[in-house]
Amino acid sequence: MPDLILLRHGQSDWNKQNRFTGWTDVDLSDAGRSEAEEAGRLMAAHGFYPEICFTSYLKRAIRTLWIALDGLDRMWVPVQKHWRLNERHYGDLQGLNKAEMAAKVGEEQVHVWRRSFDIAPPALKPDDPRHPDGDPKYAALSEQERPGTESLKDTIDRVLPYWHQAVAPELKAGRKVLISAHGNSLRGLVKYLDGISDADIPGVEIPTGTPLAYRLDAALSPTDKFYLSERSPSGIAAAK
Amino acid sequence: MPDLILLRHGQSDWNKQNRFTGWTDVDLSDAGRSEAEEAGRLMAAHGFYPEICFTSYLKRAIRTLWIALDGLDRMWVPVQKHWRLNERHYGDLQGLNKAEMAAKVGEEQVHVWRRSFDIAPPALKPDDPRHPDGDPKYAALSEQERPGTESLKDTIDRVLPYWHQAVAPELKAGRKVLISAHGNSLRGLVKYLDGISDADIPGVEIPTGTPLAYRLDAALSPTDKFYLSERSPSGIAAAK
Repeated sequence: MPDLILLRHGQSDWNKQNRFTGWTDVDLSDAGRSEAEEAGRLMAAHGFYPEICFTSYLKRAIRTLWIALDGLDRMWVPVQKHWRLNERHYGDLQGLNKAEMAAKVGEEQVHVWRRSFDIAPPALKPDDPRHPDGDPKYAALSEQERPGTESLKDTIDRVLPYWHQAVAPELKAGRKVLISAHGNSLRGLVKYLDGISDADIPGVEIPTGTPLAYRLDAALSPTDKFYLSERSPSGIAAAK
Repeated sequence: MPDLILLRHGQSDWNKQNRFTGWTDVDLSDAGRSEAEEAGRLMAAHGFYPEICFTSYLKRAIRTLWIALDGLDRMWVPVQKHWRLNERHYGDLQGLNKAEMAAKVGEEQVHVWRRSFDIAPPALKPDDPRHPDGDPKYAALSEQERPGTESLKDTIDRVLPYWHQAVAPELKAGRKVLISAHGNSLRGLVKYLDGISDADIPGVEIPTGTPLAYRLDAALSPTDKFYLSERSPSGIAAAK
């Protein structure tokens, strides 16, 4: 029985259109909703019933969680939402089609921004309508906390304090935890839990809508890691 | 601008079948979902955007809240769920068709149970599958907290401590509060806020899916009360 499940939200409308999303609050596509339903079904099939859940401020992660909790008949379980679990902020790339961006600055440059550890895309100006300064979600954050852009490193640096402050105490208290979040905020948690290097983490892919399960010891070090799936006879597929 | 909105969940599948529901975790009907959408639309039309929300452990209230928050584009707002906001526990009446019950014990007796202040229907035995003892939602409650039946007075007596402990501090801190709950748990709050007598409160009807708005002074005494609606020119209907 897993102690912790990480769930990357399913397809969003902009994933479908191949646009950089970041902190843009794009909703799930119909396919993304189906992925979330399937994730709930897999957790139920494996007998995983979360006792507390965490998610970001972004509706594609929240809706993924809602759909999964509904499928698990656990709508009543406490849910904590926090901006620190948001996707990486993609700065001035947000809203751009990846092909358009490649045509504008070259595929090589886009590859650097997407696959480097500590290089951030150009920052949004504070008066840009895409900047978090204008969004009521982030009104309670300090100016330093509202990014105009982020490298993967920046993202991980703001995710981990939340892990230590909010998530780890629940796991240490023996509660089953579900985190519904994003490719890069989950990369931060996987990097920390699995001790992955700065050089390797940009290449680690976490599939969408597929519950990634951890068993943890008393110090919260992983003793087992696997994807919930139905591909293997036991219903458990080894995680890469 | 209201400080507090009370929202009674829309029609459930059992409301439609005229069954006593109580703590039975029945979902919204399609009509109930539409009522929740309309409630969200009304709050948006009146510019009411909650900063914190409260709901029960029952999915018909949680789903009403989710649908309304979705319509308000406020899925990210914190939500606290608590069993103390649950509907009145209807004891051995739960699951029974109101007509069947009337045939069994007489309409007069059903009327007493429904409309008295401090008379509870027959209690469920702890081994009854309908008793909260067997439900994982209530596993963390003490035995005394898990009712086998409740009078309206019992319901109000467990709702008000939650108001004082969890809701009132948020209002005192100046936050806009939305509570999505049930006919009888909301009766408890209305009784307290409006100073309604024990004799009169059973007759107070709160319509489903219609946001009931309060303005409150610094001591949380109501200075204004109205339903959000589109019937009056200003979009505001006086509450009875």
